Amino acid sequence: MRKSTLLTIVCVTVMVPMLLLGVSIKENKAAQQAINEVPKIPKLEPRSSEWGKYFPRQYETYMGTKKSDEIKDVLQGSPELVILWAGYGFSKDYNAPRGHFYMLEDNMNTLRTGAPLNPQTGPMPTPCWTCKSSDVPRLIDKKGELDFYTGKWARHGGEIVNPIGCADCHSNDTMKLTLTRDYLKRALDAEGSKPFAEATHQDMRSLVCAQCHAEYYFKDTEWTDDQGQKQVAKVVTFPWDNGMVAEDIETYYDQRNFVDWTHALSKTPMLKAQHPDYETFITGAHGKQGLSCADCHMPYVREGGVKYTNHQIGSPLDNIANTCLNCHSGTEQEFRATIAEKLARKDELSRTAMDILAKAHLEAKQAWDLGATEEEMKPALQDIRHGQWRWDYSIAGHGAFFHAPEETLRVLGSAINKGQEARIKLRAILAKYNAGDFQAPDFSTKEKAQQIIGLPYDKLVEEKQQFLNGLKQEWFKQGAEKGIYDPKSREGMELKTSYPN
Amino acid sequence: MRKSTLLTIVCVTVMVPMLLLGVSIKENKAAQQAINEVPKIPKLEPRSSEWGKYFPRQYETYMGTKKSDEIKDVLQGSPELVILWAGYGFSKDYNAPRGHFYMLEDNMNTLRTGAPLNPQTGPMPTPCWTCKSSDVPRLIDKKGELDFYTGKWARHGGEIVNPIGCADCHSNDTMKLTLTRDYLKRALDAEGSKPFAEATHQDMRSLVCAQCHAEYYFKDTEWTDDQGQKQVAKVVTFPWDNGMVAEDIETYYDQRNFVDWTHALSKTPMLKAQHPDYETFITGAHGKQGLSCADCHMPYVREGGVKYTNHQIGSPLDNIANTCLNCHSGTEQEFRATIAEKLARKDELSRTAMDILAKAHLEAKQAWDLGATEEEMKPALQDIRHGQWRWDYSIAGHGAFFHAPEETLRVLGSAINKGQEARIKLRAILAKYNAGDFQAPDFSTKEKAQQIIGLPYDKLVEEKQQFLNGLKQEWFKQGAEKGIYDPKSREGMELKTSYPN
Repeated sequence: MRKSTLLTIVCVTVMVPMLLLGVSIKENKAAQQAINEVPKIPKLEPRSSEWGKYFPRQYETYMGTKKSDEIKDVLQGSPELVILWAGYGFSKDYNAPRGHFYMLEDNMNTLRTGAPLNPQTGPMPTPCWTCKSSDVPRLIDKKGELDFYTGKWARHGGEIVNPIGCADCHSNDTMKLTLTRDYLKRALDAEGSKPFAEATHQDMRSLVCAQCHAEYYFKDTEWTDDQGQKQVAKVVTFPWDNGMVAEDIETYYDQRNFVDWTHALSKTPMLKAQHPDYETFITGAHGKQGLSCADCHMPYVREGGVKYTNHQIGSPLDNIANTCLNCHSGTEQEFRATIAEKLARKDELSRTAMDILAKAHLEAKQAWDLGATEEEMKPALQDIRHGQWRWDYSIAGHGAFFHAPEETLRVLGSAINKGQEARIKLRAILAKYNAGDFQAPDFSTKEKAQQIIGLPYDKLVEEKQQFLNGLKQEWFKQGAEKGIYDPKSREGMELKTSYPN
Repeated sequence: MRKSTLLTIVCVTVMVPMLLLGVSIKENKAAQQAINEVPKIPKLEPRSSEWGKYFPRQYETYMGTKKSDEIKDVLQGSPELVILWAGYGFSKDYNAPRGHFYMLEDNMNTLRTGAPLNPQTGPMPTPCWTCKSSDVPRLIDKKGELDFYTGKWARHGGEIVNPIGCADCHSNDTMKLTLTRDYLKRALDAEGSKPFAEATHQDMRSLVCAQCHAEYYFKDTEWTDDQGQKQVAKVVTFPWDNGMVAEDIETYYDQRNFVDWTHALSKTPMLKAQHPDYETFITGAHGKQGLSCADCHMPYVREGGVKYTNHQIGSPLDNIANTCLNCHSGTEQEFRATIAEKLARKDELSRTAMDILAKAHLEAKQAWDLGATEEEMKPALQDIRHGQWRWDYSIAGHGAFFHAPEETLRVLGSAINKGQEARIKLRAILAKYNAGDFQAPDFSTKEKAQQIIGLPYDKLVEEKQQFLNGLKQEWFKQGAEKGIYDPKSREGMELKTSYPN
């Protein structure tokens, strides 16, 4: 071989990879630069695909939440729930949560939100949109909080057309994490242990989630509109003034005689827990070690020289190598086994509590039917209220059994106790009315339970179908006309419900 | 300064420390050699001070358990216990455990072991010595297991005169850890998940403790003595055949219709949990990570070049720097706060369960008094049996709230449920006998509770005082005559009891 040939080969062998590496580094730098660059996005832009133009990786992973698309009818698996929620929307329809991609869709489709015919008809009020859409901060900014929180759910129909997205957590100016729901700022300040002004970036990596993943209620708040009319807004409020523990919040509600609904069977003044994820998370080992929601639910991803946050929020168990194993040693199998054990412990006590509370409601109904007086019933109903609240607080969230297993089991233990206390009192009342041996009717299937509570299921489904084909379609048309609707946010969306559609 | 003076100074400055270091190394080597040397100790030598001649550091630290000398009357703090244990020894007297130094003394002094007058009088049987003395392996070796486990407690009086010590866990030949209680070997093999033959040294660092820190019962076992007489031995047996979880052991006892005692008020066929420390430890995080009891309760100590195991067994919280902080980061304050929270959670559910179960016993008594039939009562009594067993399993041990907080809370939750189930059934029975509004009497102090159960406290104390001044003194004299008694094992011993002495 001639020397020049050899030289050429050496040159090519060495230089081509070096050139490619140079190109790669340049590309990565460009990508990193694009990430660091402050893009031009209008304030409170509700269309996530617009943000995605500057942040393709974050947007693509966010859109990955579309993969979590299974409809799982929880009432079918746990028919006790129908009894527990008699007279309340959840007894009609309750599915396990799907990916963020579906949250607006599922809010519109559930039987809970009913079948309004126009902006004035119910059953739900406007705050039911609060955690469902990136149009909410925009609409609050436009109308003001009190106006936003006033009226029926359907009132904001044509304005709320995109699911939760970029605008809910990020500033369009700086891209930094930001709170777009002022009620969280107010709640942090009222609770006092960590006022909003002191929140660090690491705190924000949980607080943006806590805007929605928390316990809240709708606080009636009077105000006067532009026309001088008195209005009552239902303002989303976190009940944290006494603290975030189950009993602290219970006391908060009791002090205000707050009632979410009156139970259709037992006439108990009930509380419904939403999803106190933040409240329970901070009591557990990970919360106490200073971890944030994002640390496990949105782990960093490295692609070449680019590092970004995975926005496909879901179970960290889908990605143990990049979540648990960042800090812990052990095998995936060991993690799954430990977590399955935690889940089984929670499920055991939760199932016990549900069965007890369902029986308590039915036994109370029987006592009422036999002529029991309000005075006789009051102590038992108070126990039911507290027992069901505590059970609901423990299990309504997404993963309290893992975030705070000990606190969850403690509160479930106390829920069991309260529920049974109610039943002991009810047994004495039933005996007084010659029904000491009363046995609650069979509620072992969703259908049986819904029949017991007198739910007109077929009618609700029929009305809902009309809504889905009517007003719901209108809303997206209106959104498109206003230029706020992002068609990509519903790309490939199929109608999936637990009822026939 | 002259050169020679300077040289002298330099020599002295350098060489004296070197010489001292040399001496120190030699001393340490000698000490280490003494530790590694196999000493000449007779087989099953019960006197720990004899072992201490070869192992002064281990012996001195073992003798340090003398510092844990406080008598804490648990019945005074939790009078419900008197009701829960009516008809059983624990309702007479129950103190928090003191250091290992006191275990034989406290076994002799408690009102539970009564006031025998001679080797044939009760109330307790011989197996009550099993975990109290280093004379036990010696005596079993001499008499055989069945003979040892036969007869009344007082029968072995003059033979059992030293507390648990070196001979209980170490081989005199090799100094290696060894099991001196065969029932543990049998139980491990019966349970099956880790047969004794497969035990590693690290396993042994828990198993020597598990000889006593476990759940057991006395299994009636027929045998024929040298004279051809039929005898019944009460053989210490671990109920592990179905597993070690609370419900596994409950099933084991149910399958055998085993009853520890019949409750004096409710007539429930009761179970008494001992201290299932090993069973609960292995379900917790530390157990699953392969830690042993000794890792935290007997941490290694380094003194110069000598490394040895601290035998002053007690709470690792007394020594966080050498226990928790070997593996964890964090401050002592943080550890204490986290552990206090775990304790508070357990205490809350335990107090709830105790109150419920005490009421259930009293309500059952009322039902019997009113004429309830066995058939009517049976289901409620079964719930009491299971509820109290589960509560006791959760709290009877030393630190299950820490070793296995989640399992402890789960089992307590189920105990609360069972106890309340019993009360619902009892409420219906009481109503049938026109006592639907029965309220249990006040058991808010130890005295009130002992009065309710009709305990002749003053008589028990008086008899015990006679025993302490009589037979107990004889026993130590007999031990000394036999050459088995180690006076150092009682050096500075003061008579401390919860009752006047």
